[in-house]
Amino acid sequence: MASQKAWAVVAGVGPGTGASVARRFAQHYSVALLARNRANFEPVVDEINAAGGKAIGISTDTSDGKSVKAAFEQLQKEIGSASIAAAIYNVGGRFVRKPFLELTDEEFESGWEANGRGAFHFSQAILPLLLKNTNAEYPPTLIFTSATAAMKGSALCASFATGKFAMRALAQSLAREFGPKGVHVVHAIIDGVIDIERTKEWKFDHPEAKIKPEAIADSYWYLHTQPRTCFTNEIDIRPAVEKW
Amino acid sequence: MASQKAWAVVAGVGPGTGASVARRFAQHYSVALLARNRANFEPVVDEINAAGGKAIGISTDTSDGKSVKAAFEQLQKEIGSASIAAAIYNVGGRFVRKPFLELTDEEFESGWEANGRGAFHFSQAILPLLLKNTNAEYPPTLIFTSATAAMKGSALCASFATGKFAMRALAQSLAREFGPKGVHVVHAIIDGVIDIERTKEWKFDHPEAKIKPEAIADSYWYLHTQPRTCFTNEIDIRPAVEKW
Amino acid sequence: MASQKAWAVVAGVGPGTGASVARRFAQHYSVALLARNRANFEPVVDEINAAGGKAIGISTDTSDGKSVKAAFEQLQKEIGSASIAAAIYNVGGRFVRKPFLELTDEEFESGWEANGRGAFHFSQAILPLLLKNTNAEYPPTLIFTSATAAMKGSALCASFATGKFAMRALAQSLAREFGPKGVHVVHAIIDGVIDIERTKEWKFDHPEAKIKPEAIADSYWYLHTQPRTCFTNEIDIRPAVEKW
Amino acid sequence: MASQKAWAVVAGVGPGTGASVARRFAQHYSVALLARNRANFEPVVDEINAAGGKAIGISTDTSDGKSVKAAFEQLQKEIGSASIAAAIYNVGGRFVRKPFLELTDEEFESGWEANGRGAFHFSQAILPLLLKNTNAEYPPTLIFTSATAAMKGSALCASFATGKFAMRALAQSLAREFGPKGVHVVHAIIDGVIDIERTKEWKFDHPEAKIKPEAIADSYWYLHTQPRTCFTNEIDIRPAVEKW
Repeated sequence: MASQKAWAVVAGVGPGTGASVARRFAQHYSVALLARNRANFEPVVDEINAAGGKAIGISTDTSDGKSVKAAFEQLQKEIGSASIAAAIYNVGGRFVRKPFLELTDEEFESGWEANGRGAFHFSQAILPLLLKNTNAEYPPTLIFTSATAAMKGSALCASFATGKFAMRALAQSLAREFGPKGVHVVHAIIDGVIDIERTKEWKFDHPEAKIKPEAIADSYWYLHTQPRTCFTNEIDIRPAVEKW
Repeated sequence: MASQKAWAVVAGVGPGTGASVARRFAQHYSVALLARNRANFEPVVDEINAAGGKAIGISTDTSDGKSVKAAFEQLQKEIGSASIAAAIYNVGGRFVRKPFLELTDEEFESGWEANGRGAFHFSQAILPLLLKNTNAEYPPTLIFTSATAAMKGSALCASFATGKFAMRALAQSLAREFGPKGVHVVHAIIDGVIDIERTKEWKFDHPEAKIKPEAIADSYWYLHTQPRTCFTNEIDIRPAVEKW
Repeated sequence: MASQKAWAVVAGVGPGTGASVARRFAQHYSVALLARNRANFEPVVDEINAAGGKAIGISTDTSDGKSVKAAFEQLQKEIGSASIAAAIYNVGGRFVRKPFLELTDEEFESGWEANGRGAFHFSQAILPLLLKNTNAEYPPTLIFTSATAAMKGSALCASFATGKFAMRALAQSLAREFGPKGVHVVHAIIDGVIDIERTKEWKFDHPEAKIKPEAIADSYWYLHTQPRTCFTNEIDIRPAVEKW
Repeated sequence: MASQKAWAVVAGVGPGTGASVARRFAQHYSVALLARNRANFEPVVDEINAAGGKAIGISTDTSDGKSVKAAFEQLQKEIGSASIAAAIYNVGGRFVRKPFLELTDEEFESGWEANGRGAFHFSQAILPLLLKNTNAEYPPTLIFTSATAAMKGSALCASFATGKFAMRALAQSLAREFGPKGVHVVHAIIDGVIDIERTKEWKFDHPEAKIKPEAIADSYWYLHTQPRTCFTNEIDIRPAVEKW
């Protein structure tokens, strides 16, 4: 019964990592795609369903607790008694780069909204569902898509860096609390430019200077399959030619 | 003219680090103490003024941009053309320790409010004043009081750790942007229990297991005196007997 | 032609990680096993050959440059024109835990010998061979088996920690120099007790408190298959129930 | 009685940090200067004695256990029953920067010799003396002069980085073992070019781009004065304009 397949939930779906992760996990699970704008997930939902997989999309603003609550009520209706096998929080928010004294309150706060508050709402909604599924083939998994800005607060990047540092703290805290309960939490440091339509014009000397989102998706899938005796809680991912 | 002495601004003044820092910097500067509750700074203000120093207190909620704006307007009136030599952001917020799934939105957000948003408001208000003072005896200094939770996201500490990680990111970003402009920004990792009235009952095996706030204040003063060729941007401070 | 299969080289083969890695890579490659004592690799070599794979063993002391040179001359004779696809440096050396003032010179130096000097000799011998193979199916890979002691210098562990910190420095330096040339270098932080015969008596509350070496081997294999646009240079691996 | 003054021991004395540290500590203590070449410490010894302080020099190769043993026997004779208040390990060794495959065994090993093995010999000789002095005015202190290479293994810097990573591991391990026994151990990350005769030709855009060794010495002195309730175990020091 296809409807009884377990589900993977991907929050933050645009044309890059989110879509690739959805396609990759759709090879094994039904997938639910959450994004603020329907236009972001609809093509991926259609593509997966057309290819014989099962996908749904739910419009969600993860920075808004009510929106997340509504989204998970709808999700529960859609999936019924099926279980949740994996969740990927891939919401990055805006990347604001400007002199600190020119940052508006709203610009500064945007890093936290996506990477702190949004990650909190999503985690509180998804963890009770993941905890029900600790006897599955693969340990239930929660992966946060993060960035180098989680490790280093660069000049002009106060908004993004505060958000990503906070995301790393949250991921560590959840890994330590929920690992012993059987949930696998990962902080994935994506260090480089993702190779998508929007970055096509960004030219680099080297033809492989951008990260393929399909390769990130493969990494996430691998992480999901790790057994309970061998959890990776932090991983970095970058092109071979990246400076770091 | 005493009124022409430069000023130090201490945000977050309770009976511990904030009060000790205020007393220490009052040996050289006039001091402005900011705290939400007047009751927190009034005894220290009175004590410093009675001892021949100069201190004022301004009721401020650093997590509220309007409150910070009003506080700095009042500060400007009080100090006139005098300059700002140093600023210490010592607002820690509540320390919430509980299972992640029991955290309310408000509890989770409290870490960010004090350590992220509040630090942002204070930094935006104080940095233009510090930038005016780069020819002073000591480079103008902005110190953030942080904690071990800035380095490690422990189980049950998602709120505090996300806030302190964010504070570290902010401090690094500011140090990198404003260091070359002559402002000295420091992230101070206070690792241990502060020895104050409230922690008197917390018994440890070792008589020197708690950090004296006076010693933290001495460290902050030393950091302030470092010349431009020798800035410390991160320091850890703990009792000799602390496990780390 | 089986003899034309590419080779994987595993240095440091005992009953745990090294043997499991050898078995895992033997599913795709011929494998060369290096260890000081023949008794350590012979059972694994025999087992792999009996199972239809191809394995050879070469007695090598990686801390001795001449021994490594001789080993690689023998290796070259054995593999002829075949290429090297992957190399794992899994030599850990002794774990000495004792008060610092009681450490002998030899005990202190043992951490460096295995994790610093030995890793240097092995890297200098293997990297020229890996560089010849950058057009292979998977980018040529050099993985260092490391430990939590690479991240934290604990009391009583000066020997092991200096060695593992040095190994991490070496792995980072090589990753940055040889990544752009197409070689994938990984520092793998194994955080926990490996589940082998020798640790059978080490009882933990939780049945899955030890790391299965087979799971580490799976992780190493996955890392080897990452494409050039998506290299992981550092990964941590621990049991779900491990405190960290 | 001047001869009863406590002593500070500085290992690694050239024209930069070592000499400045010796001068600074000579304001309070008698100082013993250790360096391989007499020519390195003799001018400083003479200068301190001429200025009314007390200094001696002992030719020592810290990478050689026998040389360190002989040096400390001589030191004991010179200081008699006086106590040791502080020790600074400032031996840096050669900085080798070259492609990894071109490193000779000797070049690679040089990072470890100075920063690992030498630091070990010096620590084993000095710690028993520091432990006798835990009731002094200031807690007995052992400071290691380190570098950014202790935090990041850059390409072409495998020798220096393995040495400095090892030094950091050693400093952490000693801080954790001997802190509770009253000895203050510090890892000081000096991030930048020291302003000495040899670097005069190194031009930077900014007039204050180099670190004054006197400022480092002031930092070390401050660290030495920290009380047992407020130890700093790691500090970074860099020019305001340094990129990091």
